[in-house]
Parts: sequence; structure tokens; C-alpha cells
Amino acid sequence: MMQKAHRGNFFEDFRLGQELVHATPRTITRGDTAVYLALYGARFPVHCSDVFARSLGYPCAPLDDWLVFHMVFGRTVADISWNAVSNLGYADGRLGAPVYPGDTVSTTSTVIGLRETSSGDTGVVYVRSVGVNQNGAMVADYVRWVMVRKRDPEAPAPDPEVPQLPLAVSADRLVVPDGVRLDGYDSAMAGSLALWDDYTVGERLDHVEGATVEQAEQMMVTRLYQNNAPVHLNAQLMKDSRFGQRLVMAGHIISVVRALSFNGLANGFRLAAINGGRHTAPVFAGDTLYAWSEVLDKATLAGRTDIGAMQVRSVATKNRSCEEYPFKNGDGRYEPSVVLDLDYTVLVPRRT
Amino acid sequence: MMQKAHRGNFFEDFRLGQELVHATPRTITRGDTAVYLALYGARFPVHCSDVFARSLGYPCAPLDDWLVFHMVFGRTVADISWNAVSNLGYADGRLGAPVYPGDTVSTTSTVIGLRETSSGDTGVVYVRSVGVNQNGAMVADYVRWVMVRKRDPEAPAPDPEVPQLPLAVSADRLVVPDGVRLDGYDSAMAGSLALWDDYTVGERLDHVEGATVEQAEQMMVTRLYQNNAPVHLNAQLMKDSRFGQRLVMAGHIISVVRALSFNGLANGFRLAAINGGRHTAPVFAGDTLYAWSEVLDKATLAGRTDIGAMQVRSVATKNRSCEEYPFKNGDGRYEPSVVLDLDYTVLVPRRT
Amino acid sequence: MMQKAHRGNFFEDFRLGQELVHATPRTITRGDTAVYLALYGARFPVHCSDVFARSLGYPCAPLDDWLVFHMVFGRTVADISWNAVSNLGYADGRLGAPVYPGDTVSTTSTVIGLRETSSGDTGVVYVRSVGVNQNGAMVADYVRWVMVRKRDPEAPAPDPEVPQLPLAVSADRLVVPDGVRLDGYDSAMAGSLALWDDYTVGERLDHVEGATVEQAEQMMVTRLYQNNAPVHLNAQLMKDSRFGQRLVMAGHIISVVRALSFNGLANGFRLAAINGGRHTAPVFAGDTLYAWSEVLDKATLAGRTDIGAMQVRSVATKNRSCEEYPFKNGDGRYEPSVVLDLDYTVLVPRRT
Repeated sequence: MMQKAHRGNFFEDFRLGQELVHATPRTITRGDTAVYLALYGARFPVHCSDVFARSLGYPCAPLDDWLVFHMVFGRTVADISWNAVSNLGYADGRLGAPVYPGDTVSTTSTVIGLRETSSGDTGVVYVRSVGVNQNGAMVADYVRWVMVRKRDPEAPAPDPEVPQLPLAVSADRLVVPDGVRLDGYDSAMAGSLALWDDYTVGERLDHVEGATVEQAEQMMVTRLYQNNAPVHLNAQLMKDSRFGQRLVMAGHIISVVRALSFNGLANGFRLAAINGGRHTAPVFAGDTLYAWSEVLDKATLAGRTDIGAMQVRSVATKNRSCEEYPFKNGDGRYEPSVVLDLDYTVLVPRRT
Repeated sequence: MMQKAHRGNFFEDFRLGQELVHATPRTITRGDTAVYLALYGARFPVHCSDVFARSLGYPCAPLDDWLVFHMVFGRTVADISWNAVSNLGYADGRLGAPVYPGDTVSTTSTVIGLRETSSGDTGVVYVRSVGVNQNGAMVADYVRWVMVRKRDPEAPAPDPEVPQLPLAVSADRLVVPDGVRLDGYDSAMAGSLALWDDYTVGERLDHVEGATVEQAEQMMVTRLYQNNAPVHLNAQLMKDSRFGQRLVMAGHIISVVRALSFNGLANGFRLAAINGGRHTAPVFAGDTLYAWSEVLDKATLAGRTDIGAMQVRSVATKNRSCEEYPFKNGDGRYEPSVVLDLDYTVLVPRRT
Repeated sequence: MMQKAHRGNFFEDFRLGQELVHATPRTITRGDTAVYLALYGARFPVHCSDVFARSLGYPCAPLDDWLVFHMVFGRTVADISWNAVSNLGYADGRLGAPVYPGDTVSTTSTVIGLRETSSGDTGVVYVRSVGVNQNGAMVADYVRWVMVRKRDPEAPAPDPEVPQLPLAVSADRLVVPDGVRLDGYDSAMAGSLALWDDYTVGERLDHVEGATVEQAEQMMVTRLYQNNAPVHLNAQLMKDSRFGQRLVMAGHIISVVRALSFNGLANGFRLAAINGGRHTAPVFAGDTLYAWSEVLDKATLAGRTDIGAMQVRSVATKNRSCEEYPFKNGDGRYEPSVVLDLDYTVLVPRRT
């Protein structure tokens, strides 16, 4: 009899070069936007106002870039990370065509690396996932790696293969949406006068505000993305885990940080690349998140005087505010309050 | 002076044959869909993707069938079950015209049975409720019965009248949406290769996953349907009840089970009938729900080779996983962990 | 280096006559409507059904008036009340053009009064805020005053200026939406037969139902309006406040009361004015809210026989039901259970 209910893939189910077509294409709508706003309250105007977005050449307000990324990512969970022990990292991520209400995204992944861990009962799976819209245009393309349990600890290890990944996405690979011109950008209406020209490499910004995580909220957004990982959704199962409770979904933390970063990076109107990222400690319901950022690099874009790229590290903490920019201890390890170290690139209007 | 605020109908307010036109017609939108997805995360592609839905002949993704049912049901609560002690059962339910974003549903009910209980302070009310869209087309039609308090325990009992109800909706009464053809069904994109042909009567499926219920979630969905029953919404009132707390709304449990059932019944793309259902134990916030299903029957549909009907019993449990298919004890009573015994019919693509 | 992250304005940052153009215009959609319904469950049909709304001359269901008000208000928080100690009052508020899904609102405010408090470390700021849609039409216009902390307690006090405000908005200043005719109003479908003619000045109505507030809910709606006040969102910060916990956002309480008031004021189909309002005690997650109302006044509208205006006081309580209409003690102070005293004007169909 055909097996009909599944328990996800285990480490030994993955093969180098394997292609996975993930189920359940997803039409994203203004309903998703509203739920997302209710969960994060981000104030970036390009995603909040059709009028503002049209003034920049968009046909209407595009969906929040992280909402798009998480929707693309969400498709992959049932196949890639249902049995994940932890989400280890992201690299070489790019956002492509903007996604508008009514667009439908679907995702495919390719296994690009496999490495059994020394314990022998888990392995690291590297996948490149590509999300496309209904016209086949790339909307998000990224690599992630996860530690996945083996079904059978005795299963033989594959030949280890670890992909070479760029430290950061170079400026020439960043996608600026077609038809978008920032010359008429209204920075007062956007909430900050600080443009690309006003930031200095090495500058650090405390994002000031804090956001407490509620269990119902992280559950809602996990399901909104149709991520069905039990670590976020099943309290009974997690009561017996080493955490004793549900883990807050990684994507929830990232979206909270993006919303907090408005206070300091209000004009980072578009996420262009995800250069790297690590979730360095678990977050639980009831924790209050804070964030600070550092400008890692700035770049001009070929042929554009209206937009510059800015590479940013955002660090999130739990239950500790960020006036002192908590990061790593003297021994090079993360401070215990640090939960996320995220390296990404935003597009910012230039002073013209 | 005209009475303006109401406390709902009591048992003695109902008369056999009475027709109730329920207030507040409801336009259902993609916003409702997004909230519903955030609460359940169901992955049935026909409700998630306009592209997928169009490939089957739908004009766009129709609303989730249970969302439609619960919206129709929600209209009735203020008149029928505001003073209900418990929701006793459902029978002879059919889903009709698909509901699309922007459609407006309204509901009328007819009292088809009345029976005072032996205690003398409550009675059972049987109603047939019919939901229609803005064009008058039936979207859901079902019978339910509830135990309702009497305002005055001394009020005389009506002549008992208990309607005859079918054990199951026969295949010839199931509605297949106009214009829908399943020949091009992409079962890989739908998340499972198992079609109607692959299921066997008597086959049982453990749906594997669990879902913990949060108080805020059951409150939100209760209000989304504009169900105003105080047992779900008023903690102060319920603190003094025999439960000591709010009850999770029955419809919330059903929707959780439908979402869980994707893992095993992914291609049950449409709810066609609700043959019967019992909520066998209360569910409270914090409980983790699991489910398993049994195939009760299979039927072909006249003139169709692309779709078959499958009658399913889904059993939900709280705080107990379903590998062992918990159901009834030796004495014929439900296991204490069982909270729902639901008999329904789904349409499933056939191998053509 | 330009300052990029902000901690909001303090009392000494405001000047009489100052104009503030608030950031982040907001397109409000059916998604917001769905989230709002999930949080409040209000059953006023004009906001729930396109079909019902069209029968009155609206092009489709307009957004709930309080949703519009709170969205307009939400724009102002980062500039006006980020450092507020308390929201002291509202006055002279009017709702203007109806807002439809897809409309974009933005808000500007003018400082119309300033008064340092006797403590010397806070001051009261009076602002008139005006929200407009994408065509520049006024959608909400109101005065509020808040007590705001001083950054520097030694900063000199401004000359005190307290604006004169009307006790109530007069009937000739109320806006009836263009093209709306109530002659065909279906009061059965609206849930109550009680029209304007049926209410008596001085009549009191217990709204019967209660609604418990969940933390996740008040957080979600605070962010939906992009209100970033830390008193609602940051549990860690508030643990050390005199309250020991987050405060439920004022606008959440008002929307709960409006939803509860359906049971008694079902035909108050449009909020026309906010005459005054005070939040008299804090509300915390877990509290159960109740409400009662008193008809303060009735007025006809020039040239209209289909609609009358009704001035209403709604009083909300926490953890005490309202059969006895709790309000003030013998000494003129609010009963401890009273949390809101709101004076507003609704439009109600007349018997024609």
C-alpha cells in the first residue's frame, strides 16, 4: 500500500545534486500583508502605501521582501527541514522580481552539499532554493544549510561535499526592480532624512525599541508560511526536548529585527541580498527582542545615481537593550544575549 | 420601550417549523483567507494558489470549504446557540457552490426538531441551516442540534419531534463545482501522489503532526466568524463554570484537524459532505491536538472518471499522538483523549 | 554625523503652532478588515457585506470607522506620544469621507496647546490631527491631548495655552457620506428593529456580553496601526514600570466597546463624531471588558428624513458586568472598575 502520511526527509534521504519540487504554490495577497503588519508593524512606506510606491515607479506597493523570502522558504520546510535539529546558516541570497498582491510563488531546491557530523547521528544538508513567480521570474534565490537527523544512525556517511559560497553578494549581482526610480523619493514621508550618502562604513546604530514575542504570534506566522516544523507548533512534543518549550521560528526573529531597524535605517527601502546569517541562541515566547546594526560596506550601482547599496550587519539580542552594541565576548564567542547575526544588503536612495 | 439588547433565544423561544433569518451578511475576502491560513497553515493547493486552481477550471482559488462552512454557521450563533450548553451533532451537510473572494454569504435556519431533556431545564433544538451566496446559490446546507437552556425551567415542554436524518450523504447528492476538471491535476505540486484509486476502505492514516491551541487563536477565529458565544470569549464568566476556563470553539478544532489531515489526505481537494460529527470532550487553550483518519467508503460519481468520493472518519485527540489510532474503549465509550469524531466526504482526483 | 535613530519627541520639543507631517502613509485593505474582524468580531452589516453596503448607496463596504480613526491616529504616535505618560482625552472629532479598501490615508498634526504640569517633569500637548485619503479628502479630524515626559526637567516651561474645545460636535457639522440613502435599510438583516425613533434621551443599555483581552491581540492591533509606543509592546521595559506589565492600547479598548455595543445599538451604522473621551483606568491582558451606554441626545439632520444623529456615552468596565451601569461614586470619581468614558455620535436610520 502506498505510503500517504510522511515524517519528512532524514539525512540519508538526500543525495548530492538532488532536485526537490516543493508542494503548494502560494498566492500572496493583501491579506498576508495585513497579517504581517499586525505581527511586525514595520513602517517602511514602500510596502505600506500604494501611493508612495507608485511615486517610485512600482505599479502598487510590493510585498515586504522578508515576507516574500519567508514564503519561498516556507515551501521547503516539509521536504528539507522537518527533521532539522537546527538552522545553521544562510548565504548568497538575492531578492529578484518584486512580488505584488496576487502573485503566486513556488519553490524548488537543489542539494549542493552534504556532510555527516562527527556525532554520526546527524548531517548537514546544503540546499540552494529558488522561488519564482507565476511567470517564472526569480523572486528569491538563496543557500541555506541545516543539521538534519538521520533516520538510522548506522546509515553510511556520504562523501562530504561542502559548497564554496561567497562572503557577500557583490553589487553587480543585486537586482533593482525594473522601472523603479528613486529621484522623487520623499524622505520626510518615509520617516527619515538619512540617505545613502549620510551613512559611514563602520557606523553603528542602536534601534532603540524592543518587541516582546508572544507564542500565538510566532505560531501564526509559522503557519502563514505553511512551515510545519513541529519545534514551533507542538508544545507537548517540545516539553520533552532540551528546551522544554517551543522554539520561536527563525523567520519571526528576522522580521522583528527588520521592523525594529526602521528606527535608524528607515530608507533601506529594499532588501537586495542576504549575505550570511546565523541564529546564535534560541528565542522563546516571552523574550523581548532588541537590535542594533553596523554599516559594513557601501557600494554604488552601475549606471545609477539614485540608489546605492549598503551592506549591514544586524545583531539581535533577547532581554537586553542594545545601547552598548552587544556582540561577541573577548574569546570570540557571541554574548549570551545575542540571538541573531545577520549580514544583508539594502538599497537606499542617494542624495541627487 | 422596545427591547434593544438581547440575551439570545432560550429553548422555549423555538417553535417547530420556525424560520430564522440571521443578521449580518458577510463578504468573505482574501483577508479572511490570510487570517485562516495564519491560524491553520493548511497546505491544500487549490485554496492556496490561483494558478493551481485555474489549472482545474476554477476562476481563482476558492475559499477553504471549512472556512465557508464556519462563516455560514457563525451567522446562526446569536439566534440559535448563544444559550447553548453544548453542540451535540451535525448531519446531512453538503457544500454547494464554491465561494470566491468577494462573495457574500448569508444564512437562514429552520427549526426541524425540538425535544426537552429529562432534566427539564434544557432542550435539544434541531435546525437546518442554509447558507447562500449573493446570487442565492446554496454554498452550505446542514443540520445541527444543540442543547439549549430554558429561560424558565417551569415552561411547558413542546411535543417532542426528532427529525430522521441520513447516516451519510449519498454520492448522488454531492456537488462537484461547475467547470472543474481534475484530469490535469498535478499531484506532485499538490504534495502527494496518492489518488482516489490508492485508498482502500478500512485503511487508517495517522496524520503524524500535532498542533497546540493558543487562547488568542481560538478567540480570533471565533470572532472572525462573528460567533459571539460567551463560552469562547469571556474568561471571567467561564472561571465560574464547571470547566473553570474558556472552551475552545468547536469549529477551531475541526479546522485544525483538516489542516493536520493534509499529511495523508493531501489530495482530498474538496469537502463535499459532512455526514455526522460529535465533539466528545472539551478542548482548552494549551492542549495539543492530533488526528487520524479511516477510509469508511469510496464511491464513483455519475458521469465522471476524473473524481471520486471518499467517506472518511477523522478522529482528533488532545495531548496524545495517534500512532495507535485511539478511538473507543472496550465499553464503547470514547477514549478520554478523543475530542472529535467527524464523518465527512471529500472529493479526490482519480488516476486517469 | 546625522542622527538616524530616534527616541521620539519630548515635551520641550513641541512649539505652539508647530505642524507635523507624519511618516508612512497607509493603504488600508480588506486584509486589515479581516484582521480587525478577527480581533473584534463586530457585526455591523454595513462594514461586513458589500451587498448590504450597496443597498444603502455605498460603492462597497466601507472600512469600520474606528479602524479608520485608529489608522489615522497610529501615524501620529512616533512623533506625538512615543514618550507619553498617558493619553488624557479626545475632543471635537469628526469622521469625514468613508474609507474604502485600497484607499491610502496619511496624517498631519498641529500643536494647538501646551501646558507644563505642576510636577515640572511632564507637560500636556494638545494636537489637532487630520487624516486625509489619497484625494486629499478629510477622513478623520480630531483633537487629543497627552501628557508627555520632558527630556530635561530643567527645561523652561512654555507659556501655557489650553485650547477651547466644544463639548460636543453639533449636528450641522456631522458628515453624511455622499450618496448614502437609508430608506431601504433592512433592519432585520442588520440584527435589530430598533431605529432612531425608538431611542429615548436618558435611556440606558447594558450591552450584556463580555470580551477578555489577550496580550497577543492588543499587540497585534497596536502594530497593525503601526503604533510603536513601548508601553504596549515591550514587556521587559514595562516589568519595571509602576504597572509591572504592558498596558492594553487605548484604541483596542475602544474597538472592543464598539463591538460589544452592537447588542443594543446595532443600527448605529456610522460613527459621525467623537465628542470626548477619557481612559479612566489601565487595562491589562486577561481583563474582561463589558460596556453599557446612555443616550445623551438625539438630533435630526437638515434635509434628511432617513437618518438621525444620536449622541451616546459608552462606559466600559473591567471584570464587572454592566447590569447596574457602573459609572461614578458618590464623590464624583469613577468607580474603580470603569476604564473608559466615551462620548460620541452615531448616525441611525429613521423610521420613514
